[in-house]
Amino acid sequence: MHAYRTHTCGALREADVGTAVRLSGWVHRKRDHGGVLFVDLRDHYGITQMVAKADSEALRVLEGLRLESVVTIDGTVVARGPEATNPKMETGTIEVVADAVTVLSTAAELPLPVAGEQDYPEDIRLRYRFLDLRRETLHANIVKRTKIISDMRRRMEGAGFTEYSTPILTASSPEGARDFLVPSRIHPGKFYALPQAPQQYKQLLMVAGFDRYFQIAPCFRDEDPRADRLPGEFYQLDLEMSFVTQEEVWDTMEPVIAQVFEQFADGKPVTPAGSFPRIPHAEALLKYGSDKPDLRNPIEIVDVTDHFVGSGFGIFASLVESGARIRAIPAPGAGAGSRKFFDEMNNWARGEGYSGLGYINIKDGVPGGPIAKNHGEEATAKLIAALGLGDNDGVFFAAGKEAQAAKLAGLARTRVGETLDLIDKDRFALCWIVDFPFYEYDEDTKSVDFAHNPFSMPQGGLEALSTQDPLTINAYQYDMVCNGFEIASGSIRNQSPELMVKAFELVGLSQQDVEDRFGGLYRAFQYGAPPHGGMAAGVDRIVMLLCGAQNLREITLFPMNQKAEDLLMGAPSAAEFKQLRELHVRVVEPQAKG
Amino acid sequence: MHAYRTHTCGALREADVGTAVRLSGWVHRKRDHGGVLFVDLRDHYGITQMVAKADSEALRVLEGLRLESVVTIDGTVVARGPEATNPKMETGTIEVVADAVTVLSTAAELPLPVAGEQDYPEDIRLRYRFLDLRRETLHANIVKRTKIISDMRRRMEGAGFTEYSTPILTASSPEGARDFLVPSRIHPGKFYALPQAPQQYKQLLMVAGFDRYFQIAPCFRDEDPRADRLPGEFYQLDLEMSFVTQEEVWDTMEPVIAQVFEQFADGKPVTPAGSFPRIPHAEALLKYGSDKPDLRNPIEIVDVTDHFVGSGFGIFASLVESGARIRAIPAPGAGAGSRKFFDEMNNWARGEGYSGLGYINIKDGVPGGPIAKNHGEEATAKLIAALGLGDNDGVFFAAGKEAQAAKLAGLARTRVGETLDLIDKDRFALCWIVDFPFYEYDEDTKSVDFAHNPFSMPQGGLEALSTQDPLTINAYQYDMVCNGFEIASGSIRNQSPELMVKAFELVGLSQQDVEDRFGGLYRAFQYGAPPHGGMAAGVDRIVMLLCGAQNLREITLFPMNQKAEDLLMGAPSAAEFKQLRELHVRVVEPQAKG
Repeated sequence: MHAYRTHTCGALREADVGTAVRLSGWVHRKRDHGGVLFVDLRDHYGITQMVAKADSEALRVLEGLRLESVVTIDGTVVARGPEATNPKMETGTIEVVADAVTVLSTAAELPLPVAGEQDYPEDIRLRYRFLDLRRETLHANIVKRTKIISDMRRRMEGAGFTEYSTPILTASSPEGARDFLVPSRIHPGKFYALPQAPQQYKQLLMVAGFDRYFQIAPCFRDEDPRADRLPGEFYQLDLEMSFVTQEEVWDTMEPVIAQVFEQFADGKPVTPAGSFPRIPHAEALLKYGSDKPDLRNPIEIVDVTDHFVGSGFGIFASLVESGARIRAIPAPGAGAGSRKFFDEMNNWARGEGYSGLGYINIKDGVPGGPIAKNHGEEATAKLIAALGLGDNDGVFFAAGKEAQAAKLAGLARTRVGETLDLIDKDRFALCWIVDFPFYEYDEDTKSVDFAHNPFSMPQGGLEALSTQDPLTINAYQYDMVCNGFEIASGSIRNQSPELMVKAFELVGLSQQDVEDRFGGLYRAFQYGAPPHGGMAAGVDRIVMLLCGAQNLREITLFPMNQKAEDLLMGAPSAAEFKQLRELHVRVVEPQAKG
Repeated sequence: MHAYRTHTCGALREADVGTAVRLSGWVHRKRDHGGVLFVDLRDHYGITQMVAKADSEALRVLEGLRLESVVTIDGTVVARGPEATNPKMETGTIEVVADAVTVLSTAAELPLPVAGEQDYPEDIRLRYRFLDLRRETLHANIVKRTKIISDMRRRMEGAGFTEYSTPILTASSPEGARDFLVPSRIHPGKFYALPQAPQQYKQLLMVAGFDRYFQIAPCFRDEDPRADRLPGEFYQLDLEMSFVTQEEVWDTMEPVIAQVFEQFADGKPVTPAGSFPRIPHAEALLKYGSDKPDLRNPIEIVDVTDHFVGSGFGIFASLVESGARIRAIPAPGAGAGSRKFFDEMNNWARGEGYSGLGYINIKDGVPGGPIAKNHGEEATAKLIAALGLGDNDGVFFAAGKEAQAAKLAGLARTRVGETLDLIDKDRFALCWIVDFPFYEYDEDTKSVDFAHNPFSMPQGGLEALSTQDPLTINAYQYDMVCNGFEIASGSIRNQSPELMVKAFELVGLSQQDVEDRFGGLYRAFQYGAPPHGGMAAGVDRIVMLLCGAQNLREITLFPMNQKAEDLLMGAPSAAEFKQLRELHVRVVEPQAKG
């Protein structure tokens, strides 16, 4: 017989009744039923109920053990009978009568309970993560995470991609977020950096002639912790393809992502591959007030600026005259309710720093509120007709400069959708946002800068860069969005050295700057670079969506806390003087602020 | 038609003759045959021969292009005819007559050629790695590497393992090699470390109740570069199992490793799963003079110390009297040759710092050389019979303290095997070395230290630690060896806090030391730790063996050079003052030595 187990704790079924078995696991729960001790024995695979009979040696040993001790139990499988069957347990039709118990490891008094799911302070959970990870939901989330990643790999390989690992000790990239640095022992005063993303390496792989790359890639950004970002590392499903158009990237990745979602959605509907809406960035800002729209929300924003040219509603009329836009956010059915909802929305908008949300509420066929009154009956009827509003509907208005109006409208759309319970929470709505602007105007520096990725290919190529207003140029750049979260981002890359120099010139950088900052890539493009493009999907975000988790710590094995500390292993920690001397660095204590 | 290609450069066959196609790729080679230009167009998938007819526009464009430029070519597939067929190319029965050529990217003058495999200086190869990686052998090695890793993953999952990623920004571990450190921005004066291996995390996973873990794990050791170790990171197939004995680890992993080898051995024989010899460490040192024996070498070393007690060969007799061991290394068939071989072996041993290698050469039935002469005819005959030597065989003798004799014998065994061409290079001979000693005597510090892994479980447990001479205690520790290389190492772990404290006590460390150094793990073991064990296999070494590569750089995408520099990306590099200030460190230039 195996030293520790003939079966796992999730294996035994009614067909095993009568078998002599040996199980090993953790003492999950104990219940004393009039001298008979019931013990739930738990391992990775499940839970089996063990029974220690009155006055038995097994009972004596088990009775004295703390929960979470590890034991091996020899016993015999018996049927529970219909009245004692537990349909919630996979092993619920049987139990094992314990003959002999061997204690493999005793547990000290537990700092947090394993059985049950009660909330516990985060610092205790992280310090005793090995206990926390035994708890049902977290254990299941972690297992689901590994399965999702494995499934991604399998589907990527099925789509003709090959996984290449790119270096983790690499060069500092001066773009983007803050790097983690690693002092070099051999080269005093020099530092490696951990990659913020394998962007340059994956493009180099394309130049090196590897056609379809992917990687479940660890990425590192030394940024201040946020709710949706753990300190330290995160994982991307990173990919790149040669000789492709953006449409081919979309056609290739829609099935992969849709099928991963379908596989792990627990039966919830997922936008099918081949039918992801492809929404131009400008249209997304107009219709959803966001480039990360939640398409489960049926509300669509409409630009109604023209309706208010010379309107009797003076505030909007003069705003429109000064160049503002007015956006309408329909609130279906809201007119039937009380005015309180409309007033609360208005207060909320003020609380967010906007000047407020106008509205019309249609009750029993009569449009109400100050806008309706002042705008005039005929004009209001026309507006309502244009918006397709019916009796008992409502509509909010966001006014302001285009970007501001769009943003407020988007926030209001979400809030109206949530408050009126219009969002079908039990599905995954996926789409592409495409045609992102290549440049943007930076109000702080009063200059043109890259809106997103400087490596993207501008639409219209060299001609557009040479002749067009930069702020009207779009890039072959796209995001994938699910339920209001950006889950992937990508582009067709600019692989022409000439175009690259021109693109950087427009943000005030010289060829020398390009060479200094992206030397490896710029040099590579001189020696035959194929057209290429790809994207990177956020593994952590996808896992969170599929686990229904609200916090990254609920899907991460050993997360750091919000102060970027690993409480379990004690990182970061002081280094020995000898180590620092070898690395040619000295610690400089921050000066007291005074 | 697709913007870039209807087929890859490896796809077209005779069945496609007559088809209008579009291919994209790199201009690999050009040959002018009397006005007709033949161009080998290459991509990741293969090479297709393109033909540009005399006076055609296609010819004009292609003629002017440098090799390695990237083009799209529209054309028509034609049969080559039997006389022009190239059986070495998968597309060798067809060629494509070029109608139109679009230049996607022109190549500058190449710093190293892509077609052909001539040797090139390493710094050029690394600086222009994107060109180097296009070369046939390196490209194929990298692809093979990715396939091997993918196959490992598939087989590990098939064996019931789940892949978990453990943190890369973690705590410094005071054991083992030098850490790479990462200064913390948020915690002045504190540092993260990159993991030398996920050892503690994988054990924590077992304590957390995850049963069968594996990971293709990046590991980081800041050690001085060696021939068999690249600076920076390397990859391990890391695994751990709960509720197992060492035999179960072996039985589980033999099929995985054997099948990975079989899959990629190009038909070379591999030791079948289930038949890996399991050789105790002491036996390996005796029979092979090494704990990394190359079992393709048929020579087995024999201890012949007893034969020389009171021998007429005075040197050996007195050595034996003073406690030395004499090891015999048979050299089958060597006696038939000249004495030169024997003298050269002796000179080689002296060159290695040993006092020399005695020998007997049996020529035409007569044992020759000084040992045979002095040892005496009868004793020599007995020795030869005991060793099973035949006519025209030879035998070398290594004498010295046991460890020294074993080592010299091992080196001589390898050299004899190679020189006499006894080693079947075209197979993979796998075995386990088991029962490693737990402790060793450190001659430098004159004290007992851990021989290998302090986390291993000592055989005999607490009783052995309490009663046995530490130097006689073995550990449940094992290596897997292939063709003379250690390809994996593992153990059953010591999961008992009490045993852990005792084991460290014997090397002079206190319970407090254990807590300070391995706090996370030691704490975890207090709360119910399952028996567990596992191993880690060197991915890079396995890939090298299967690619027949002699150098890690031939199987690594973007290796650093021997000075730990990434010549392509320019790492390490100076950091900006602002970065260092944020990280609370200052560079200390090394003092001039004088």
